[in-house]
Amino acid sequence: MIPVAILGGSGYTGVELMRLIAMHPGLELTAVSSRQFEGQKVSRVFGALEGRVDLPFTSADPATLAAGARLVFTAVPHQTAMAAVPAILAAGAKVVDLSADFRLRDVATYQEWYAPHTCPELLDQAVYGLPEFYRQQVKAARLVANPGCYVTSVLVALVPLLRAGLVSPQGLIADSASGVSGAGRGAKLNLLHGEVHENFKAYAVAGHRHTPEMEQELSLAAGAPVRLTFTPHLLPLDRGILSTIYAQPLAGVDEQAVRDCWRTAYAGEPFIRPLDKGLLPATKEVRGSNRVQLAVAIDPRSGLLKLFAALDNLTKGASGQAVQNANLMLGLAETAGLMELAVTP
Amino acid sequence: MIPVAILGGSGYTGVELMRLIAMHPGLELTAVSSRQFEGQKVSRVFGALEGRVDLPFTSADPATLAAGARLVFTAVPHQTAMAAVPAILAAGAKVVDLSADFRLRDVATYQEWYAPHTCPELLDQAVYGLPEFYRQQVKAARLVANPGCYVTSVLVALVPLLRAGLVSPQGLIADSASGVSGAGRGAKLNLLHGEVHENFKAYAVAGHRHTPEMEQELSLAAGAPVRLTFTPHLLPLDRGILSTIYAQPLAGVDEQAVRDCWRTAYAGEPFIRPLDKGLLPATKEVRGSNRVQLAVAIDPRSGLLKLFAALDNLTKGASGQAVQNANLMLGLAETAGLMELAVTP
Amino acid sequence: MIPVAILGGSGYTGVELMRLIAMHPGLELTAVSSRQFEGQKVSRVFGALEGRVDLPFTSADPATLAAGARLVFTAVPHQTAMAAVPAILAAGAKVVDLSADFRLRDVATYQEWYAPHTCPELLDQAVYGLPEFYRQQVKAARLVANPGCYVTSVLVALVPLLRAGLVSPQGLIADSASGVSGAGRGAKLNLLHGEVHENFKAYAVAGHRHTPEMEQELSLAAGAPVRLTFTPHLLPLDRGILSTIYAQPLAGVDEQAVRDCWRTAYAGEPFIRPLDKGLLPATKEVRGSNRVQLAVAIDPRSGLLKLFAALDNLTKGASGQAVQNANLMLGLAETAGLMELAVTP
Amino acid sequence: MIPVAILGGSGYTGVELMRLIAMHPGLELTAVSSRQFEGQKVSRVFGALEGRVDLPFTSADPATLAAGARLVFTAVPHQTAMAAVPAILAAGAKVVDLSADFRLRDVATYQEWYAPHTCPELLDQAVYGLPEFYRQQVKAARLVANPGCYVTSVLVALVPLLRAGLVSPQGLIADSASGVSGAGRGAKLNLLHGEVHENFKAYAVAGHRHTPEMEQELSLAAGAPVRLTFTPHLLPLDRGILSTIYAQPLAGVDEQAVRDCWRTAYAGEPFIRPLDKGLLPATKEVRGSNRVQLAVAIDPRSGLLKLFAALDNLTKGASGQAVQNANLMLGLAETAGLMELAVTP
Repeated sequence: MIPVAILGGSGYTGVELMRLIAMHPGLELTAVSSRQFEGQKVSRVFGALEGRVDLPFTSADPATLAAGARLVFTAVPHQTAMAAVPAILAAGAKVVDLSADFRLRDVATYQEWYAPHTCPELLDQAVYGLPEFYRQQVKAARLVANPGCYVTSVLVALVPLLRAGLVSPQGLIADSASGVSGAGRGAKLNLLHGEVHENFKAYAVAGHRHTPEMEQELSLAAGAPVRLTFTPHLLPLDRGILSTIYAQPLAGVDEQAVRDCWRTAYAGEPFIRPLDKGLLPATKEVRGSNRVQLAVAIDPRSGLLKLFAALDNLTKGASGQAVQNANLMLGLAETAGLMELAVTP
Repeated sequence: MIPVAILGGSGYTGVELMRLIAMHPGLELTAVSSRQFEGQKVSRVFGALEGRVDLPFTSADPATLAAGARLVFTAVPHQTAMAAVPAILAAGAKVVDLSADFRLRDVATYQEWYAPHTCPELLDQAVYGLPEFYRQQVKAARLVANPGCYVTSVLVALVPLLRAGLVSPQGLIADSASGVSGAGRGAKLNLLHGEVHENFKAYAVAGHRHTPEMEQELSLAAGAPVRLTFTPHLLPLDRGILSTIYAQPLAGVDEQAVRDCWRTAYAGEPFIRPLDKGLLPATKEVRGSNRVQLAVAIDPRSGLLKLFAALDNLTKGASGQAVQNANLMLGLAETAGLMELAVTP
Repeated sequence: MIPVAILGGSGYTGVELMRLIAMHPGLELTAVSSRQFEGQKVSRVFGALEGRVDLPFTSADPATLAAGARLVFTAVPHQTAMAAVPAILAAGAKVVDLSADFRLRDVATYQEWYAPHTCPELLDQAVYGLPEFYRQQVKAARLVANPGCYVTSVLVALVPLLRAGLVSPQGLIADSASGVSGAGRGAKLNLLHGEVHENFKAYAVAGHRHTPEMEQELSLAAGAPVRLTFTPHLLPLDRGILSTIYAQPLAGVDEQAVRDCWRTAYAGEPFIRPLDKGLLPATKEVRGSNRVQLAVAIDPRSGLLKLFAALDNLTKGASGQAVQNANLMLGLAETAGLMELAVTP
Repeated sequence: MIPVAILGGSGYTGVELMRLIAMHPGLELTAVSSRQFEGQKVSRVFGALEGRVDLPFTSADPATLAAGARLVFTAVPHQTAMAAVPAILAAGAKVVDLSADFRLRDVATYQEWYAPHTCPELLDQAVYGLPEFYRQQVKAARLVANPGCYVTSVLVALVPLLRAGLVSPQGLIADSASGVSGAGRGAKLNLLHGEVHENFKAYAVAGHRHTPEMEQELSLAAGAPVRLTFTPHLLPLDRGILSTIYAQPLAGVDEQAVRDCWRTAYAGEPFIRPLDKGLLPATKEVRGSNRVQLAVAIDPRSGLLKLFAALDNLTKGASGQAVQNANLMLGLAETAGLMELAVTP
């Protein structure tokens, strides 16, 4: 069993990491920190873990966490992550960072969308942790930037099509909706059941921080700058993202060409599931699993392609992908601990 | 009190009609039919109406319903409606038809999307019942075609902008999501709580029957044929539609121009609510009310306009709008019985 | 229009009061206070009220609120209420207090369950505001203590039966469940959608503050001290309370005797609805209405009576009942503004 | 891998069995039948299983199913099960029956609550499959009657206390609530999202078929006839049962005595989790897991014990327990494939 630790384990990505590690055949959780719950038993905060995660939350000292672990998951807000990562690396542990701090290759872009970057020198060695696209680099990395949840759904749908030149890089629109756990476990008014339940609305409509991250990877795939129109919405469910993406097909491209492209790109990939004709992704069918469901339809009136991608924002959209990256970085089977199916209904 | 009747009262639009009529100061329900529940007391089927709607469900004979009423709401499936409407009109009652049978002005289009039309001669006199656009015609009509739920959300947002030439009629996309009551009260597997709850998915992605209805009215507004890309989704909530619409602004049009256009077009309209800058529509804020909330944002990267429209699919999207039409047709105050606010949370 | 004001309008009982007052034919809201949102427009906090409640939240000075109003609803936490009520009364306005501060007739009991009482001299003139039991006293009162939400559900079911001697005052059990709005609109971790949704659990199992309030009124009804076993649970819904009550019938009492007793006690009461045999209360059927649904079943094996009472915790359980009390205190029709039916589905 | 089959795989217990078997290290699904979906691929009906359960649904011939399997799970309605079980046993396969057909030891009681029994001669060899109480018998059985979902929650809480004489066998009350999947996957009006969501109500209040099953096992535990008052309620969630049980403690019994009794009775049991003082069961914390959470509180006013038990009605309440039984019957580790933790949030 390989010892791993978590910096910041009291949020929803934290408890999801603990759930996955507790069921993992090759990883052992040695420590988990929380400023809010330091000193309390994990299982008193997260009753579902009772009897399986018997640690108390520790203080958030990165070096201490790193000392007993070969890899540390940093599941803290951006800025907090970059303040801790250098010490963890210096202590000899690898890092999968679930924040946004090392996702953008261009420090100016980061600073435009987020805040000043305090360790830009690490950006070069950070690997963007979408294993289906960067598997070899992830294996060799000591610092992996785990992708954003919305971003993963959009990239999995579009990257192969842009690489293969099936769709135009112009005019792409991603209309996405996420369950509420994507917004974290903070005690905020707008996340109350009374506000979210039986409700649906858009937010961050003039610019969401996942946009530059999508554009970075889409541009690399297209070999040219891509500008994306992105609209996130808040769903009255706990987990799940569905992205509905509108793209202009290039000459002669039909539904089957898209499906074939995906099947080729994702042949042998256990987590990416292009669906058969006639089926459509559903967040419930991937809930708690590390899967992405994909489908395509062509609008017979406008000729526009509609691409659909569903994933669980806490699993393939965050902690599941983080474990997938950790598996690669630690020489374990990539699927270890990640073959769980969605609990339906 | 003006006597009205309902043909087909056991569905969700039916119970919403009964709720609104029971609270209405000028309408009195004289009869309501149901094939499924004929002979049973309405209040045993819909406990919320106990003590306020004390009728039994009757048989679905249109002439009988019409005999005691000045207006009949037909809340039955398409085809069933057109089979009943001529007899109701012949009996001297007016009709607000909540089905699709009289919405499309072109019988060929109807037959392409639905089925053979058995009384095309009535299409000429049928008025499209979106009172904010066709108020005078509705007042004079004896047959009003009540618009589709998705359609209302899209038209309210786009029609004034197309009329004013603020957005291009090319490339319009409507990405919409509806609560489950929009699919009716049939005992269908895909509408079970176990299938819908904690789920989100698209459906009818290659063509939904509301598309030609939208295109008909958008084309009239634009003065030129409009083709729309429309994608409906199913939300895990009972009521509510949110449409997120992407449109290309014409030269010089910004957010404020859109807002101004809406404010001018909807000045004095109690049910259409363009929101102040910084606010976004939320289905929960219109739940049970006859309102449409509108907002606009311009994407700073792509320059595309994002328009947002929220309504309750059973109220302004169906039965509330039907009562609004009936008020006009019967010479009542247009807002009578319709000023209820959303129940929040 | 009679001017009324609200002290503490930013919680869920506050917004429900505003909704009801906005639709009320005889009341006009002149001011509403909020510490948290002072200076902001009400409609920016509660979008559903846009265009209908155009006030800003004011400061929470009781005398100022009282100056322009004939009655003030105090919708603030206990202790805060008692600090404000004397000044409101001194300014000549009547008070309906939605907190617990004036519900318990015995100051020692209050202090045992809550905190020191700073104006016990007002307890004598405070009337317990359950109009179906204390209508005449409410009409004459200048201070009404609006009952607790769980309490109302239990009292409406049991008080007539205890008064009539149909059930034993010994061994009563109330097993109740409430939607989350009963816990208020505070930004608390345990009220997040992520914690409440798809969950069900008991809380406050060794003693909930509504217990002494129930026991006070049940004892008065029984003419002897009553001890009640009460267990509240948290439901994953916004609104609604269902109480399932277990009681020992006295000799010869059967289901019909209970139903008859209720029908006699509540003859002419528009808000209390004993259901016909075979029907059971459902929170959804009273959602947003001021109704209580009642039903009874006798367990054929144990002979125990099961009583069921459903209400909307924010309407008949709080703000609706408060308006009902205000109507009586101000000489308006008791049902004014309260005949709204539940929005179903 | 041991071959197993499922008779009746298109309901919610069926898909849960398939999920658990697909992730099981020692079981292999060889066939699954469905009258409704015969011939269709399982993964088109249950998208979550795509790529992991690649069988089509077969016809429901018991002998054919049994031919290729060492054990058959019968997940069909009562009566249908007893019609199939003899043929399966005759073909040499063992049976875990998820229906009620073999749960009641007394054929007259079965016939009183259900229907005529066509193979009463099998009742003697049927073992009641609650492994924590009947482990040795289950190991030796060829026919196991898998307990009811409500029943399991009540028995796990009460049996050790009755065996130890800590609570009175008189006056027991079980007030239970279940998520909607407990009612199956039939296309029924009362199971629609529009009916269940944002609703809470009791049902079957004068007698639910799980009552005699509870009484049978409680009587055995108490060594005397037990009559139980049982009230089921329908929760607006997919999965989860919480039972709140009221019991009279015998002299000197306090909370700690109950907790100690449970800890002794369930020492070493991985699935039964008595919680620490101060914690309460929550359906969300066991969702998708095979666990039962237990807690106790003593009402300080009435002295009554309140016992709380939460489980997932599809896992420990049905299919998880069925796999646990199968593991024992097939000589596998009892926990094989069942150590999954709840997916939270």
